[in-house]
Amino acid sequence: MTDTNTNMRLKLPITCFILEIILIILFGVLVEYDKETDARKWHHSNHSEYDNDFYYRYPSFQDVHVMIFIGFGFLMTFLQRYGFSSVGFNFLIAALALQWATLMQGFFHGMHGGKIHVGVESMINADFCTGSVLISFGAVLGKTSPVQLLVMAVFEVTLFAVNEFILLSLLGTKDAGGSMTIHTFGAYFGLMVARVLYRPNLHKSKHKNSSVYHSDMFAMIGTLYLWMFWPSFNSAITAHGDDQHRTALNTYYSLAACTLSTYAMSALTAHDGKLDMVHIQNAALAGGVAAGTAGEMMLTPFGSMIVGFLAGIISVLGYKYLSPILESKLKIQDTCGVHNLHGMPGVMGAIVGAVTASLATKEIYGDGLEDVFPMVAVDKKSASYQGGIQAISLAVTLGMALGGGLLVGFIMKLPIYGAPSDASCFEDSIYWEVSSKKLLETSKLCICPHQLLSLETARVSRS
Amino acid sequence: MTDTNTNMRLKLPITCFILEIILIILFGVLVEYDKETDARKWHHSNHSEYDNDFYYRYPSFQDVHVMIFIGFGFLMTFLQRYGFSSVGFNFLIAALALQWATLMQGFFHGMHGGKIHVGVESMINADFCTGSVLISFGAVLGKTSPVQLLVMAVFEVTLFAVNEFILLSLLGTKDAGGSMTIHTFGAYFGLMVARVLYRPNLHKSKHKNSSVYHSDMFAMIGTLYLWMFWPSFNSAITAHGDDQHRTALNTYYSLAACTLSTYAMSALTAHDGKLDMVHIQNAALAGGVAAGTAGEMMLTPFGSMIVGFLAGIISVLGYKYLSPILESKLKIQDTCGVHNLHGMPGVMGAIVGAVTASLATKEIYGDGLEDVFPMVAVDKKSASYQGGIQAISLAVTLGMALGGGLLVGFIMKLPIYGAPSDASCFEDSIYWEVSSKKLLETSKLCICPHQLLSLETARVSRS
Amino acid sequence: MTDTNTNMRLKLPITCFILEIILIILFGVLVEYDKETDARKWHHSNHSEYDNDFYYRYPSFQDVHVMIFIGFGFLMTFLQRYGFSSVGFNFLIAALALQWATLMQGFFHGMHGGKIHVGVESMINADFCTGSVLISFGAVLGKTSPVQLLVMAVFEVTLFAVNEFILLSLLGTKDAGGSMTIHTFGAYFGLMVARVLYRPNLHKSKHKNSSVYHSDMFAMIGTLYLWMFWPSFNSAITAHGDDQHRTALNTYYSLAACTLSTYAMSALTAHDGKLDMVHIQNAALAGGVAAGTAGEMMLTPFGSMIVGFLAGIISVLGYKYLSPILESKLKIQDTCGVHNLHGMPGVMGAIVGAVTASLATKEIYGDGLEDVFPMVAVDKKSASYQGGIQAISLAVTLGMALGGGLLVGFIMKLPIYGAPSDASCFEDSIYWEVSSKKLLETSKLCICPHQLLSLETARVSRS
Repeated sequence: MTDTNTNMRLKLPITCFILEIILIILFGVLVEYDKETDARKWHHSNHSEYDNDFYYRYPSFQDVHVMIFIGFGFLMTFLQRYGFSSVGFNFLIAALALQWATLMQGFFHGMHGGKIHVGVESMINADFCTGSVLISFGAVLGKTSPVQLLVMAVFEVTLFAVNEFILLSLLGTKDAGGSMTIHTFGAYFGLMVARVLYRPNLHKSKHKNSSVYHSDMFAMIGTLYLWMFWPSFNSAITAHGDDQHRTALNTYYSLAACTLSTYAMSALTAHDGKLDMVHIQNAALAGGVAAGTAGEMMLTPFGSMIVGFLAGIISVLGYKYLSPILESKLKIQDTCGVHNLHGMPGVMGAIVGAVTASLATKEIYGDGLEDVFPMVAVDKKSASYQGGIQAISLAVTLGMALGGGLLVGFIMKLPIYGAPSDASCFEDSIYWEVSSKKLLETSKLCICPHQLLSLETARVSRS
Repeated sequence: MTDTNTNMRLKLPITCFILEIILIILFGVLVEYDKETDARKWHHSNHSEYDNDFYYRYPSFQDVHVMIFIGFGFLMTFLQRYGFSSVGFNFLIAALALQWATLMQGFFHGMHGGKIHVGVESMINADFCTGSVLISFGAVLGKTSPVQLLVMAVFEVTLFAVNEFILLSLLGTKDAGGSMTIHTFGAYFGLMVARVLYRPNLHKSKHKNSSVYHSDMFAMIGTLYLWMFWPSFNSAITAHGDDQHRTALNTYYSLAACTLSTYAMSALTAHDGKLDMVHIQNAALAGGVAAGTAGEMMLTPFGSMIVGFLAGIISVLGYKYLSPILESKLKIQDTCGVHNLHGMPGVMGAIVGAVTASLATKEIYGDGLEDVFPMVAVDKKSASYQGGIQAISLAVTLGMALGGGLLVGFIMKLPIYGAPSDASCFEDSIYWEVSSKKLLETSKLCICPHQLLSLETARVSRS
Repeated sequence: MTDTNTNMRLKLPITCFILEIILIILFGVLVEYDKETDARKWHHSNHSEYDNDFYYRYPSFQDVHVMIFIGFGFLMTFLQRYGFSSVGFNFLIAALALQWATLMQGFFHGMHGGKIHVGVESMINADFCTGSVLISFGAVLGKTSPVQLLVMAVFEVTLFAVNEFILLSLLGTKDAGGSMTIHTFGAYFGLMVARVLYRPNLHKSKHKNSSVYHSDMFAMIGTLYLWMFWPSFNSAITAHGDDQHRTALNTYYSLAACTLSTYAMSALTAHDGKLDMVHIQNAALAGGVAAGTAGEMMLTPFGSMIVGFLAGIISVLGYKYLSPILESKLKIQDTCGVHNLHGMPGVMGAIVGAVTASLATKEIYGDGLEDVFPMVAVDKKSASYQGGIQAISLAVTLGMALGGGLLVGFIMKLPIYGAPSDASCFEDSIYWEVSSKKLLETSKLCICPHQLLSLETARVSRS
């Protein structure tokens, strides 16, 4: 591939303009305010202004929004020369995906008289779907052009909506925090795309596929926002009342326990007993993923902590031992290790959810059973039926993700999107104006003692 | 100007102490708790604790607060050597402005029996007014002393409050998100100040008036917080219920569409089809500005997206083609390009608001018309009258901003505030302890491969 | 001490695993959902889903959560080579402390029929207790191993809970924002630990005990989040309604006034009238600490501003003149200056609280007196009695903190935790994988003109 190929002068504008114009037209034809956002409809019925769902969902929405744009965006800035792309492409594809998701999710489960109704709940759901795309982005980080990513987003959002429809609407699966719909789907979809886009000569840019001191600090911003707001994520669309409250609480404990086991495993497995930033940045979040399905159930703080504790262990072991095998044996180059953060913990969360669901009784949930398991409470199915549905949903999700990723991977492999060459992967300057020339001109030298080299050492190494 | 001149040893403490002591005295004389924050008054009437407006405004307030201190502060850290000043002066003048704004806005529209009442609504309004000052700060960034900025803040807050009073109280203008009162006013005020403070020899510090890799990363923190929380900003003081909900929704779509058009235009106009961080950091926010007036109206998602889409295009074009002309022809050195982010999109937002208002009907708004357009619903004015008022308000705002900026610019030009010399603009070390000496002493060298230069290249350039 | 000693390969995993497994077992035995998070209990009684306390506390909780993990974590990243440890150890000990605090606080004042009840209020209280531990962490920053910190956290949380129990439950003290329970306790506990761990040869790593340009920028992220969300912190567990609203308002004004006096004092006392980042990052927050006790009272905006104004002055003076004396005379090496940010302002807040309480009358508070001072309103104690109780509480807290710190300091001094040697303090690479070798291998040189040295100067200094 030549420089001409990665030139985005026409490719990116054409793609963005066409997609956005299609979106605007479809929104014009299909989308209208829901009852809570429409001036006439809201004021038609008789209720207090304070009953508007805005007040009970919007703070959660904003927390989720921060996770999507700051959390995912900065988590991926750990690469030394890929900060602009990490946070910038994250921004671009998220802005596209949330619009497209509004249409796709609305089409499958938000239609009212031929119109898609939008409000704070559709905003949260769209951000959730976007999260799934950003997980897949993590698997191919550094090896794709922005146009390729936009194409991936369009297809993945569509398939996400189909899978979500099968699970939530057809099967009656419970998955409020998206262990299956978001994490498992996003991770395995992305891994399959990475497999199809396998680059045998990626070692050419290997020296750039790592972090430096400051890029790790930026990544910690992403990690911490994801960690702090994960309770909001998992509880954002559960039923109101005790359900939201309990989900947030369970997730909080799962994450706390996960952090302890992550630090323990990182020191245990890493070189010289030193902590590895990759583990801290990622594995400490696995507890949030693993509590995504069962978080709204009566998992108890005790159960949540066990789940988080194990998720942290599994995730660090994945980074340490499984990722190298995935690359060498299965030819999956998973830049961010999404298999360890979203893949395995997502599957684990699905299984925990299936088990917890199958143990549900009227005695434990009381009248709250209807909120959590309407199939059991209203449709009189047994709890083990619900558990079975949960297990089937995991299988469906894995199938959809792997099949979809395979298909979309081949679409993304077409040599028309301006993907970077093997040697220019993990490199901002392919797609961004980077101020390197300016730097030479101004002839200023950064003397900043962050690193371990003394000037003396430096002299020796140069002479 | 000499170093003695920029010495802040006495100038800054005297200014801060005098201003703060005046503020404290005036607060002692004039300010009291409103009904919702006063223990006696609140408990005097009969209502649930949960009816307190705290629960329906405070989350929005905190989002706005983050935009003011993190959003604006970090957005301006893009300059390579001006991070301390960007975030630090932003902090200082915001802390002053919000106190002064409480008094000025209270004086004009919060007096109750000779006392200014304060609570969460006054907090939001004060932050809004502060935002306007920070926009003006962006136009003069790097070229002013902290004392100069404090002086600007005092005068600008006062004029802001007058303009806001004319619009909202006298004319009955609708401008919940402040396309006119905040953005248009702040931008044109700041541009006029920049014009008065024109420095013909600013090229002396030109090499510092640009970004480096990490400073652009810090700026993205500011950008993303502004982008994510803009829906909260525009909806923070609208009527409760559907109004707040709808405003947030409209702003969300406007921003999403704006992001797509910004990326498209950046690649289309920039060198070699590479994305320019200046555009991404700024123009992607224009959709929030442009939805500031019409956001609370029945703009529809479709309309919001069109507005955002166009705002992004206009803003990038402004950065690319208009800013150089402003500097060369009109002698306006607009450091952050506030004309492109707040000026033009603000005017656009005002026009969109005027048009949307003039199209309002009872059929569309139902009984909600009273919340959005009380003049139309209660005072029986026509919608086109409201539209006319909106248009007049834009003219009033432009006049107040330009006239006020001219006046305040001349006050700021007095050579008593310790402004930096032309050669020491965009430079933290004039006003801040910077650890340069310490660095030499410790003799440590930063070897961090963020940039594109190999050691080999560096060797050549030095030999 | 040798490198072998600081090797965490076994020490850290063993400590983390044992602690977490004990926590999980104790949670399994002792902890259950409270009425608001339990499906059965919540649905048993008859109320709207919207009455759940989740909606009235959770946004405050999330703000507090951000302060704990981002605020404290990044505030401490100012050190040039200690960013990973600052934010990473903060993360680790906070994750432990919040779990242990849930048990300890629950044991002392959350037991219901032998079980500890958990919900959003216990989450906030646990985060508060964690904050106290992180304050102590600031005093010993850079000089301790993660195992030492975990040991400190376990003991400090326990003593915190005892002190809190004495104050809030036995004495009837009011301290919603924790001027005493959190700040005074955490600061003096940490200072006493630092005293016991005094290192006479710390000058060996003196060159690393300072900031560089970017580390100061990261620290400002911490500062601003603490500053912005402090109103949420102080109001998070006050009574609902006017109390929460008023507390947030008072804190907001106290912080704003404090910021002005901090900038004034920094310029007045620092070298050449230049602002010192240490003051801005820390002293500007003292207004929040000092409003921690009286914030919920009818302090008035006027009173709040006076408190904040004085707190900023005291804090800067402390950094400038007292800290060097503490180190040279009292042998207390207070890395972050917690005495100036939390110690003195905490004591000041306690005194302000005592005075404000003793001035409370039924005339001022009306029926709201019961919320703020139940001892006065219900138990018919006099306001001066309440004031006396407040003053006694300060003495109790100081005694508990100093005695506890002494004891725990000696426990931490045992040579088994892998503490760094004097020469390797303030150094990430002792406990973290840092990419120094990788840097040499890739042979890339960072040419980034953040600093003040031109290449020319650099040449001279090297030749």
